[in-house]
Amino acid sequence: MDEFDGLKEECGLFGIWGHPEASELTYIAMHSLQHRGQQGAGIVSSSGDYLFGARGMGLLTEALSKEQLDSLKPFPHAIGHTRYASSGGSELSNVQPFLFKSHKGDLALAHNGNLVNALNLRRALEDEGAIFQTTSDSEVLAHLLRRERGGGEESLEGRKKRIKKVLKQVKGAFAFMIMHQDSLTVALDDHGVRPLMLGRKDGSYCVASETCAFTAIGAEYIRDIEAGEMITITDEGIDFDHYTDVTSPHMCSMEYIYFARADSEFRRTSTYRIRKELGRALADEMRQVDADIVIGVPDSSLAAAHGFSEASGIRQEQGLLKNRYVGRTFITPGQEARERAVRMKLSPVRDIVEGRRVIVIDDSIVRGTTSRFIVKALKKAGAKEVHMGVSSPPLKNPCYYGIDVSTHAEIIASRKSPEEIRDEIGADSLTYLSVDKMHDVYHSFGSKGQCDACFTGNYPIDIEEAILPQEKDLKQKGV
Amino acid sequence: MDEFDGLKEECGLFGIWGHPEASELTYIAMHSLQHRGQQGAGIVSSSGDYLFGARGMGLLTEALSKEQLDSLKPFPHAIGHTRYASSGGSELSNVQPFLFKSHKGDLALAHNGNLVNALNLRRALEDEGAIFQTTSDSEVLAHLLRRERGGGEESLEGRKKRIKKVLKQVKGAFAFMIMHQDSLTVALDDHGVRPLMLGRKDGSYCVASETCAFTAIGAEYIRDIEAGEMITITDEGIDFDHYTDVTSPHMCSMEYIYFARADSEFRRTSTYRIRKELGRALADEMRQVDADIVIGVPDSSLAAAHGFSEASGIRQEQGLLKNRYVGRTFITPGQEARERAVRMKLSPVRDIVEGRRVIVIDDSIVRGTTSRFIVKALKKAGAKEVHMGVSSPPLKNPCYYGIDVSTHAEIIASRKSPEEIRDEIGADSLTYLSVDKMHDVYHSFGSKGQCDACFTGNYPIDIEEAILPQEKDLKQKGV
Amino acid sequence: MDEFDGLKEECGLFGIWGHPEASELTYIAMHSLQHRGQQGAGIVSSSGDYLFGARGMGLLTEALSKEQLDSLKPFPHAIGHTRYASSGGSELSNVQPFLFKSHKGDLALAHNGNLVNALNLRRALEDEGAIFQTTSDSEVLAHLLRRERGGGEESLEGRKKRIKKVLKQVKGAFAFMIMHQDSLTVALDDHGVRPLMLGRKDGSYCVASETCAFTAIGAEYIRDIEAGEMITITDEGIDFDHYTDVTSPHMCSMEYIYFARADSEFRRTSTYRIRKELGRALADEMRQVDADIVIGVPDSSLAAAHGFSEASGIRQEQGLLKNRYVGRTFITPGQEARERAVRMKLSPVRDIVEGRRVIVIDDSIVRGTTSRFIVKALKKAGAKEVHMGVSSPPLKNPCYYGIDVSTHAEIIASRKSPEEIRDEIGADSLTYLSVDKMHDVYHSFGSKGQCDACFTGNYPIDIEEAILPQEKDLKQKGV
Amino acid sequence: MDEFDGLKEECGLFGIWGHPEASELTYIAMHSLQHRGQQGAGIVSSSGDYLFGARGMGLLTEALSKEQLDSLKPFPHAIGHTRYASSGGSELSNVQPFLFKSHKGDLALAHNGNLVNALNLRRALEDEGAIFQTTSDSEVLAHLLRRERGGGEESLEGRKKRIKKVLKQVKGAFAFMIMHQDSLTVALDDHGVRPLMLGRKDGSYCVASETCAFTAIGAEYIRDIEAGEMITITDEGIDFDHYTDVTSPHMCSMEYIYFARADSEFRRTSTYRIRKELGRALADEMRQVDADIVIGVPDSSLAAAHGFSEASGIRQEQGLLKNRYVGRTFITPGQEARERAVRMKLSPVRDIVEGRRVIVIDDSIVRGTTSRFIVKALKKAGAKEVHMGVSSPPLKNPCYYGIDVSTHAEIIASRKSPEEIRDEIGADSLTYLSVDKMHDVYHSFGSKGQCDACFTGNYPIDIEEAILPQEKDLKQKGV
Repeated sequence: MDEFDGLKEECGLFGIWGHPEASELTYIAMHSLQHRGQQGAGIVSSSGDYLFGARGMGLLTEALSKEQLDSLKPFPHAIGHTRYASSGGSELSNVQPFLFKSHKGDLALAHNGNLVNALNLRRALEDEGAIFQTTSDSEVLAHLLRRERGGGEESLEGRKKRIKKVLKQVKGAFAFMIMHQDSLTVALDDHGVRPLMLGRKDGSYCVASETCAFTAIGAEYIRDIEAGEMITITDEGIDFDHYTDVTSPHMCSMEYIYFARADSEFRRTSTYRIRKELGRALADEMRQVDADIVIGVPDSSLAAAHGFSEASGIRQEQGLLKNRYVGRTFITPGQEARERAVRMKLSPVRDIVEGRRVIVIDDSIVRGTTSRFIVKALKKAGAKEVHMGVSSPPLKNPCYYGIDVSTHAEIIASRKSPEEIRDEIGADSLTYLSVDKMHDVYHSFGSKGQCDACFTGNYPIDIEEAILPQEKDLKQKGV
Repeated sequence: MDEFDGLKEECGLFGIWGHPEASELTYIAMHSLQHRGQQGAGIVSSSGDYLFGARGMGLLTEALSKEQLDSLKPFPHAIGHTRYASSGGSELSNVQPFLFKSHKGDLALAHNGNLVNALNLRRALEDEGAIFQTTSDSEVLAHLLRRERGGGEESLEGRKKRIKKVLKQVKGAFAFMIMHQDSLTVALDDHGVRPLMLGRKDGSYCVASETCAFTAIGAEYIRDIEAGEMITITDEGIDFDHYTDVTSPHMCSMEYIYFARADSEFRRTSTYRIRKELGRALADEMRQVDADIVIGVPDSSLAAAHGFSEASGIRQEQGLLKNRYVGRTFITPGQEARERAVRMKLSPVRDIVEGRRVIVIDDSIVRGTTSRFIVKALKKAGAKEVHMGVSSPPLKNPCYYGIDVSTHAEIIASRKSPEEIRDEIGADSLTYLSVDKMHDVYHSFGSKGQCDACFTGNYPIDIEEAILPQEKDLKQKGV
Repeated sequence: MDEFDGLKEECGLFGIWGHPEASELTYIAMHSLQHRGQQGAGIVSSSGDYLFGARGMGLLTEALSKEQLDSLKPFPHAIGHTRYASSGGSELSNVQPFLFKSHKGDLALAHNGNLVNALNLRRALEDEGAIFQTTSDSEVLAHLLRRERGGGEESLEGRKKRIKKVLKQVKGAFAFMIMHQDSLTVALDDHGVRPLMLGRKDGSYCVASETCAFTAIGAEYIRDIEAGEMITITDEGIDFDHYTDVTSPHMCSMEYIYFARADSEFRRTSTYRIRKELGRALADEMRQVDADIVIGVPDSSLAAAHGFSEASGIRQEQGLLKNRYVGRTFITPGQEARERAVRMKLSPVRDIVEGRRVIVIDDSIVRGTTSRFIVKALKKAGAKEVHMGVSSPPLKNPCYYGIDVSTHAEIIASRKSPEEIRDEIGADSLTYLSVDKMHDVYHSFGSKGQCDACFTGNYPIDIEEAILPQEKDLKQKGV
Repeated sequence: MDEFDGLKEECGLFGIWGHPEASELTYIAMHSLQHRGQQGAGIVSSSGDYLFGARGMGLLTEALSKEQLDSLKPFPHAIGHTRYASSGGSELSNVQPFLFKSHKGDLALAHNGNLVNALNLRRALEDEGAIFQTTSDSEVLAHLLRRERGGGEESLEGRKKRIKKVLKQVKGAFAFMIMHQDSLTVALDDHGVRPLMLGRKDGSYCVASETCAFTAIGAEYIRDIEAGEMITITDEGIDFDHYTDVTSPHMCSMEYIYFARADSEFRRTSTYRIRKELGRALADEMRQVDADIVIGVPDSSLAAAHGFSEASGIRQEQGLLKNRYVGRTFITPGQEARERAVRMKLSPVRDIVEGRRVIVIDDSIVRGTTSRFIVKALKKAGAKEVHMGVSSPPLKNPCYYGIDVSTHAEIIASRKSPEEIRDEIGADSLTYLSVDKMHDVYHSFGSKGQCDACFTGNYPIDIEEAILPQEKDLKQKGV
């Protein structure tokens, strides 16, 4: 799948408590999580007494200036956030972490995911006089936290109790980082849809959306944080707790298939190995296809193609290359323009594909635009046959748990059968991995449960509140 | 007084209701109010159903792009705000107007001035769970408005009642613009400290901090809005009301002396004429000083020098010139650096001052830095004597009503006598206008009452709440 | 005259030899010469062995970064140049000083003015194989210098001889700065059309287009450099010479009337004083006009209005104010747009002009656009009569000596009589200063001869070569 | 080899004659040649009568604005250039194509390569009065072209004769594009060191440094341009010629090994296939090394690792991943900083390498920095053994033909033996491909001769003139 033609992850998280280079390590870790969000980035650090924040638009290196970074030093605690790239209309005020100052103490929040009852919570809060300045779920959580009473106002224990009560009010898929001047609390929703990892660097605890962040800073990867878990880190140590005991693990399948970096590990298994296995399983489904070479769509599908090659015995070749220099270009739209845009990004290697029967492995098909161009380009380069293999099931349904699919109507598999898609993209055959085979692979790697809603429509978390008719109104209003 | 060495106005307001070119006229009007704020600018327009906003940092022409301006068209209602230039630490999130979206309807706010009980209001609101994202008084008002109940939730009358109730809770100096999708309410505090003017353009009502905005857009200047007045404009027409009947007009003297543009009128009198009269009055106090020429410090003191010249019969000359091209320069600080900075901005005209006894008229002295350099430069250029006349009384006290004086300790007259100041700036004599003579001038132009707290320390609005010890803590926290 | 509606000066020069802060002083001096060019700026410094350059587009503060400035330190010799603002199509490569590196030694050049035989010289050089990368006369001079032989290749005396020979080949109006690693030569054309001043700072010689640069850096103003003069400054001292003895001083009248800063001096007289005298002389021509007040168009015509007031006894008032915040705005062209643009820049002070008969003094009229709007605005503000007085003769002819008049056809006085112009601008009367009276004023200040070609068409330097038909072709080619 | 730690190509060329979308196609083609230069980019288009140019600093998408691109339309002829990334000190004036305007006709030039006698030519030209504004060889050629006489000044035949005469004067490695308003001439040096390809798009001829540019615009790849060839394209058609018949093909080996994009073809063979064969040949030399997996250093060495895997039977795995988001970061230098920088760019996949004996394939080693970190990172990730295989011979000598090697002293193999290098990088073994085996691979793909000077020191073009002692002086001067 191509990043310009598909799904968008909604954020990367990192936090570290009690390290003399906290903000610098956070910056490095965020760089390794850049693939989880390119629209904006921010860091909040804590001196122990107060919180200090910096944020900006764009890639990390554009978003934060050296002066901003320096202003976060030398404080020993920090959290960072990279925000996803949506189309247009974005504003700095939506970039996380959010930092709220008050005479009752500072508060910073950042999250990955999506609350399905956010709208109802917002309305209820607005009816009570709350004012929202952003469209972010983190602001909803902040309001709930500020309004919660009891549990001993000033004590850490009281704070933890209030956070628990608030987390029980929100529904959806979320990984939250909640920072006060003297504590960092992280929590994962009761279905564990989004990933969150625990690590240690020089004796200090850290958390991250993916383990590649730990690799980047030389931290040790301790374990995956579980559904319903709530962990609080202070200068006194770490407190492992659960805000709920009713959990039902449904880790997002797309993290394995597409989002996570190939070197990131889940339950000590790299997504690279999982993708290889998905490719092996696909090979099993495509035994009937005879071909000379197998090609992965760079970069995210190379691992699946590798597995496919190993299982099928068909030689893998780099028959498609990707231009590393991608950016906004000024090519006039219209006549040939879209075709040109893809041509500028992906190129077939003629003398590899010419005269050959080719199997192309892609990790998923969203709109089908890129697939069509790949088939066309390979055939123009001389491929005798082009068979498309997809190392995941047909992606048919929108995600309400934190993944952005530009327009639902654009998901090709939601309105066309595989045969119709094959016809549209011009391939000689098209094979998807079955849902069962996909789950077999996950189980073989020790998965405790995966969300497959985008393939099956079986949403593990009730989405009724998330699809209220008013939602569209609000979206049109630009909220 | 020089803008780099003195007081800073805190904002310019403009709003217009029901004009096909509302946002464009607002942009032009804000350009004429640029002297009231150079740190940021924003416009919110209303389609009648929803509000749309755009804002940015810097001068108007930098703050808003053409794309942003276009996004506000062709809506018929608009308010705009120019924000003052504070030193450092500023953030886009503080730029007004604020725009709050809610399922209960959109709300936009902008103000000029300062609430003396803002801190207490914030604390009380925070204790009730309110979250603040800025340090602005407009956010305080927004919270109060959102929490106010009763009066018929949905009706315009109910809204007006709630606004009145809220305005009664806030104390201080303020001109507020409160915009809902279908109404614009403007209000002035019960002491009328900040200016607010009513105008009409092509049949549509408009409001502005100064009448120069009306001149800029070709609007008619109707009248000055009074202390305690609250005016609501809708498609149905204009509603004149008062949120309180207990008023005590104390218009800011510094608006006349320094802040307002010379062509702006108050009670149909231009500040140019008022300044000339202040200069005439000063001449009366300096009868004993014998001189060949009188020179005004450009640009704000030229009018006073003019009046001085007319009254004294001493010829006025442009003996000091100002470089129009001022911007950040990269001159190394240290050795001679500050002197150079002034030299780059103000130049004496040698053959005008050489061999002459000179009276220099400045409208006020804050830190004394510029005055010292002016005296030195004129003497270096050959002036035989340099007498300094200030067309206002000694400025001794900080302002709590919306004027920023960098550091209180830096106000020279708060710690030195006129004779000590004369000595420090090196002038042959130094004469201030007396408080009584200043008031005489204002009364002659029909003033109903002027605030003179910065000269006398007689604060018309109780400032006790504004100077709580906690204030300093919060300021240090960066709130 | 308004800078957006009139003539454009073509550059400001400054140079200093043998000062430890050479480049910093040059930067400050250029800032004071910013009015002579806003399109670009550059500095070249010499270490004594090699030359180092930096340049950029826009105002000085935009054109040169701190890093660029630092790269020019701590070399003891420097020249700087500010370039005029032409419309569009400009390129960094045209920004001066030009710096040419060669194994025969480095060379830097900058100039103010225009060579009338530049085209013929370019063609001859091109025919000999020369390559031009810019459209600047300085590049022509560089080629001539590089091709010149004899005089003792390596000696300073030889170099001076070659420069003399080259200067004799070029015709036109020019002030040149020619810098080698170990010498700075400045030269003024044989008619002395452009100004060039000699100064001294802390024992080091410096040159500048105007004395305001000396004031800015605290340098002493020694004297005006004469027509045909060529001065060479080295570590050994200063060498006064002439490249020609056949001279005919014709200093540009417009420097006095409009271009030079009011505090700049010529023959020890400030332009402020000269402008006042022009205003006095104009009063003599307008004795028949009865009025209540006289108003100068800010800023350049205030001095003339002052002189007019003194001579006529009619009180001067600041009836027109100028908005200091001018920049590119995004107002849609068309309906009312041009009128708005002027309204945003100039405002009448209503209560000054209302009910009064007004004389407005402008220093010149080029296209008449601004004049028309001034008359209209003053009448709208209530002026009973508006009489326009111009403190220079009708400007009728293009300048070939370094002044840019946007389009010749746009010079209103070249196609209309004063009475027709009066009618077009809507004034009650229009009076120009006569050519004779203008010269009388100049002579009274010791002028040795003034160019009045733009008024009379009497071009002191033959312009035949400058108006070859091919010029238009080349201009269309974008050369 | 890593792009931040190695060699830098010096430019990419593209040109097209007679296509309605000439400049747009050039822009797209340059985008595909971005890997050949990231410092600057420019395009010159021809209307048939005049040339029009645009250029800028940085990546293509930064260098040229939409306005600039639009200014080059709709002219039917265009050439484009991408310039290499050198460290610091670069200036816009060095960005190609150069555009020279003259009354004798416009001229544009761009090149890839390096003239070994450029310094002597410059000096001779300077002695004749020529002025150089850049340090580029293209400017040298321009001067030679402008000075050349004879052959019928105005005719195309005369022009071709003059170009031939000039090309005979320059020595070195070069691909030149010479554009006049009505013709485009391209030429390759007599050793054919740099690549230049001929293609056709919609009937129009085009040229490019690599065939990937043809793929990007959908053009047909006709053939490789030969050593000594000179091709002129006009509206009348294409003229194939040679400026010399004494040729000795020595195509740069590094183009195959590292520089060219993997899908670019030479003599109809993709570099991907050549790199695979180099990997196969290396496998032959490493038969004695027993390992579990083979890993290529992404991206440029994946093909060689692929070939190695096929020949050795050792499974290839993606054991190293590259972060796609690379840019300037603000990490403080010092303690751990360099290690961090590499860690941010390359990550091992732990569960792939853990417990395994690993062969890492890199296409070359320049400084050894990256190799050392790769070995360390793989061992930290658990690799039992790390054997380094390099698919090219030891790189020992600087290149004088257009490749930038940061500092000669930094080439590790020029001062250390393979065993010493192995020790420094910490690998268990280190094997280079032999020079003979490398040539065997090239010959098998029909190479007519390869330059191997960087490996052997046998420079096919005399470099004596290029290493004159004065060179260093000039370099220090910043010329």
